[in-house]
Amino acid sequence: MQCVKALLFDVFGTVVDWRGSLIDELTAFGAAHGVDADWTGLADAWRGAYVPSMERVRRGELPWTNLDALHRAALERLVAASGIRGLGAAELDQLTHAWHRLRPWPDSVPGLTRLKTRHVIATLSNGNVALLVNMAKHAGLPWDMVCAAELFRHYKPDPETYLGAARLLGLAPGEVMMVAAHNADLHAARSCGLKTAFLPRPAEYGPHQVADFTADSDWTVVAADIGDLAQRMGA
Amino acid sequence: MQCVKALLFDVFGTVVDWRGSLIDELTAFGAAHGVDADWTGLADAWRGAYVPSMERVRRGELPWTNLDALHRAALERLVAASGIRGLGAAELDQLTHAWHRLRPWPDSVPGLTRLKTRHVIATLSNGNVALLVNMAKHAGLPWDMVCAAELFRHYKPDPETYLGAARLLGLAPGEVMMVAAHNADLHAARSCGLKTAFLPRPAEYGPHQVADFTADSDWTVVAADIGDLAQRMGA
Repeated sequence: MQCVKALLFDVFGTVVDWRGSLIDELTAFGAAHGVDADWTGLADAWRGAYVPSMERVRRGELPWTNLDALHRAALERLVAASGIRGLGAAELDQLTHAWHRLRPWPDSVPGLTRLKTRHVIATLSNGNVALLVNMAKHAGLPWDMVCAAELFRHYKPDPETYLGAARLLGLAPGEVMMVAAHNADLHAARSCGLKTAFLPRPAEYGPHQVADFTADSDWTVVAADIGDLAQRMGA
Repeated sequence: MQCVKALLFDVFGTVVDWRGSLIDELTAFGAAHGVDADWTGLADAWRGAYVPSMERVRRGELPWTNLDALHRAALERLVAASGIRGLGAAELDQLTHAWHRLRPWPDSVPGLTRLKTRHVIATLSNGNVALLVNMAKHAGLPWDMVCAAELFRHYKPDPETYLGAARLLGLAPGEVMMVAAHNADLHAARSCGLKTAFLPRPAEYGPHQVADFTADSDWTVVAADIGDLAQRMGA
């Protein structure tokens, strides 16, 4: 691990609690606008649209489309399907930007702040740059660099993302460690030659969580959370 | 100026003192290795190679080549032409990385830290990402995002750089302000619709400075330094 110069973090689920944040913001929006709906169900369905939307881009069925645009299109579809009425373009934009305001898990900011003293810390997320920059401002995430799928016009787990981030940082793949709460992300990173760190986020999907409770392979590091990762990395 | 959401900073000369830093590092290298040479002249010639090297890329005579690689090639040529002997690949690499260790002007870190409280602050530099990330770590520059020519495969003043940075930040050109100590950079940014801020760095080129002592147009803001810019932006 001495050779690890930079850590790349998956963001949704690994660093921030997208589900709790979305449920809170959607529920508050409903209360403020007097719109009664299953906001928790909408949050889960919205996240459920994420992988299929990206897959359409990855398969070439859609031209390159960033995550804000995929989120916006999915929300419009889901709102219509749920029979929620009275949301115009401004409201849909406002709700789409809820993804820019997700809150970090309690260990994220202190853990990243420790890691930053000895390593380059960057995102490697399927979120777009504006989303990740706004989120970092809002949540106080102290990134040295924001790497996003958008920079490579490829979504994870395409190898262009992991290798592209290492190249931008001027590092060999083996000098970079991917950190994620999702085993599949780490399998893809390892196949590109990156080091890997797993940390579980068993509450990510709330009652719907079915996977990623534990490491499913011998990752370079398995940590309890980002603070524990900092400890293990000597920060 | 209420509509300015993000400030993009030129880096070499505007934020960091490349000349003083390079002269110090080259001179210290010469002393440590017992190599006698005109290190100040080498620093100036090295920077002198910057624009012609980028122009070859901009004209398509060279395929996309990042600034580290352009710096490395120019150094090798200049060292040979100067008759400096005994520098192998490792030493040339070490000296090329002097550009990753440039020191900020005294007002840069406090001014950026103030601006960051109310605005997104990012680089928009012809330096490559690794150079800018390592420099930020070394110098304590608190960027929210590192935008680099490399992300767009175009060097400034190509419009793809200014417009590409605004697009990545999810902003209209008029919501972004380019900050530079070089009038030419601001002319190009303004022609893309960006706001502009000039601040003079009359010591940038030492005794060789011939331009950019003052603003040559009615830029959106003309400031004394980055601290004064923060003041004028209400930070």
